[in-house]
Amino acid sequence: MPNPSLLILPGDGIGPEVMAEVRKVIAWFSDHRDVAFEVAEDLVGGAAYDKHGTPLADATMARAQKADAVLLGAVGGPKYDKLDFAVKPERGLLRLRKEMDLFANLRPAQCFEALADFSSLKRDIVSGLDIMIVRELTSGVYFGEPRGIADDNEGGRVGTNTHRYTTEEIRRVARSAFELARKRDNRVCSMEKSNVMEAGILWREEVQWVHDEEYPDVELTHMLADSGAMQLVRRPKQFDVIVTDNLFGDLLSDAAAMLTGSLGMLPSASLGAPMENGRPKALYEPVHGSAPDIAGQGKANPIACILSFAMALRYSFDLGDEATLLKGAVEAVLAQGLRTPDLLGEEGRDAVTTSEMGDAIVAAL
Amino acid sequence: MPNPSLLILPGDGIGPEVMAEVRKVIAWFSDHRDVAFEVAEDLVGGAAYDKHGTPLADATMARAQKADAVLLGAVGGPKYDKLDFAVKPERGLLRLRKEMDLFANLRPAQCFEALADFSSLKRDIVSGLDIMIVRELTSGVYFGEPRGIADDNEGGRVGTNTHRYTTEEIRRVARSAFELARKRDNRVCSMEKSNVMEAGILWREEVQWVHDEEYPDVELTHMLADSGAMQLVRRPKQFDVIVTDNLFGDLLSDAAAMLTGSLGMLPSASLGAPMENGRPKALYEPVHGSAPDIAGQGKANPIACILSFAMALRYSFDLGDEATLLKGAVEAVLAQGLRTPDLLGEEGRDAVTTSEMGDAIVAAL
Ligand SMILES: CC(C)[C@H](C(=O)O)[C@@H](O)C(=O)O
Ligand SMILES: CC(C)[C@H](C(=O)O)[C@@H](O)C(=O)O
Repeated sequence: MPNPSLLILPGDGIGPEVMAEVRKVIAWFSDHRDVAFEVAEDLVGGAAYDKHGTPLADATMARAQKADAVLLGAVGGPKYDKLDFAVKPERGLLRLRKEMDLFANLRPAQCFEALADFSSLKRDIVSGLDIMIVRELTSGVYFGEPRGIADDNEGGRVGTNTHRYTTEEIRRVARSAFELARKRDNRVCSMEKSNVMEAGILWREEVQWVHDEEYPDVELTHMLADSGAMQLVRRPKQFDVIVTDNLFGDLLSDAAAMLTGSLGMLPSASLGAPMENGRPKALYEPVHGSAPDIAGQGKANPIACILSFAMALRYSFDLGDEATLLKGAVEAVLAQGLRTPDLLGEEGRDAVTTSEMGDAIVAAL
Repeated sequence: MPNPSLLILPGDGIGPEVMAEVRKVIAWFSDHRDVAFEVAEDLVGGAAYDKHGTPLADATMARAQKADAVLLGAVGGPKYDKLDFAVKPERGLLRLRKEMDLFANLRPAQCFEALADFSSLKRDIVSGLDIMIVRELTSGVYFGEPRGIADDNEGGRVGTNTHRYTTEEIRRVARSAFELARKRDNRVCSMEKSNVMEAGILWREEVQWVHDEEYPDVELTHMLADSGAMQLVRRPKQFDVIVTDNLFGDLLSDAAAMLTGSLGMLPSASLGAPMENGRPKALYEPVHGSAPDIAGQGKANPIACILSFAMALRYSFDLGDEATLLKGAVEAVLAQGLRTPDLLGEEGRDAVTTSEMGDAIVAAL
């Protein structure tokens, strides 16, 4: 059997820097664990626009469709702020999500014990935190039609986006959430605004249907998304798995990520339907953005991207033990006190560089 | 000149209890300060549905349109969860907002010094916090058409809501935000998702236009709403005034409210265009909900509703001194250590009842 294929899309800003550290980790696994990959690299986002005039070339899209897993760094930067909506760096990422049909975005919000004091929340509120947010990623207001900006014929303009969900779109992501819950604390909380949006009512009913018909053993609760935002700040440990739509998931997962105090630490997996070889279509990326302000300075934290690769080991290649090993190596270097600048706050203890952090993790392996 | 008119709509759950305390405060002002109101009371939400079969009777709507200010308690409760969307308690509140055209929802998130330790965030992150969130309240996905749930002719259903903003809707709420900023720290941060929504691009451009043409002296920044959710958790004191749309405002203001650790403390004002007498159309309500689980037990905190009346004194009746007096009385009772159960957490010190809290505030006046 050929080695599984990995397509690496470093993207913009700190993307290439953090991805360089992931490549060290990939090399370690192929040298020491007989876990080898066919690695290819390509462009996405502003980097792709600079070369091809589009944030994702068709050829790159085709390669992503065939890869066993895609690893993405980050996209965007001020240089591209003035570009037309249709060729902005983000459109490259959104095209990947949509055309690969990556409907389930898994965003763990975990508090690393060594970093618990770094959160803006009190230690006892976040210590031991371990939430999995499952965000729908291919529908809702991100993709609904009609959309656009039009003249209103009275000298003004009107901007429109359409929030739209179908039964099947809701059911499939709900199933992902219930499956994950069974391997965790067996609890799912679904969030929407069913008190003001009909699409929220449909969301609630379909999630309930999947529960009653297929996962009656999992505990299901429903919460309005505004209350959800509150409860995440107030008592985040009440949650196990949260399932929500594309837009709410965007905000809520960012808020949840920030609770842990370690945004530079958080990975994500975006999963689609199984391919012929049984593996799901999959894209892995850090939750953080391209951080143009610190790009190229060796200040970026590579851990989120390295842990995204750990998620790839687990979810694409069924290598749970290797994923655990890698996560353990990350925890070990944190326990040793190694910190990139983002993990230091104002005190200004000695920070390590991006590549020192990567080397330390490889050494810990 | 006749006394200004106040329409009181206690609503459901703890609404009537907290409103009873507001009436004590109103009585104190008319007895001691020659600030008298013509007070009338009517039904909204589930209470109105029980009597009239609709969450807001036309006659009540007409009274609200004519009142100098409306004071609302809270709406909703499990008893009404199964009702049709069109007659749910929330529709009563939404009808008031829409037909009175209350486009600017002011939600201060202030941390009361006496309560700073009660936040789930660290004291230094929230102590002295004073943000004003200005949420657009009459448009966006709350009201956009088309909307509803339909069969998709393949055995499934599709739920649709429309997010829609016009130039004028954005400009008028932006003006409210800039006006407020001028009386505060002169900074506005506008939040949207212009990287994925065209309506967000329009939002950003129109807010910028109002700034450049009319308020160039105010500092304006733009932030994506997901980053906004993060930054609110991480470093909330960076903000002065935040302006955002109806749905983002719903989530972000709830998260911000929770930062202060004192949701039972936070008031809101919803303002429209000036009436003939120069006063804006206005509705004042606490940020908290109807809390059916504690209704009728004397456990509710009346302060949010009392401070909503303080906002009415300031924004509807130009009685800034009286508003400050009332806020001072609230701070005084907190400094004395009086706490309703919501302000006590798990420790279980002796809590005062709703009406003891109201009496203490009146005594402090
Ligand atoms: C970059 C952007 C398009 C994206 C989103 O809004 O989904 C990002 O915020 C995310 O959460 O992955
Ligand atoms: C009760 C509900 C309709 C309302 C809203 O979503 O606007 C509430 O959450 C609020 O924020 O005032």
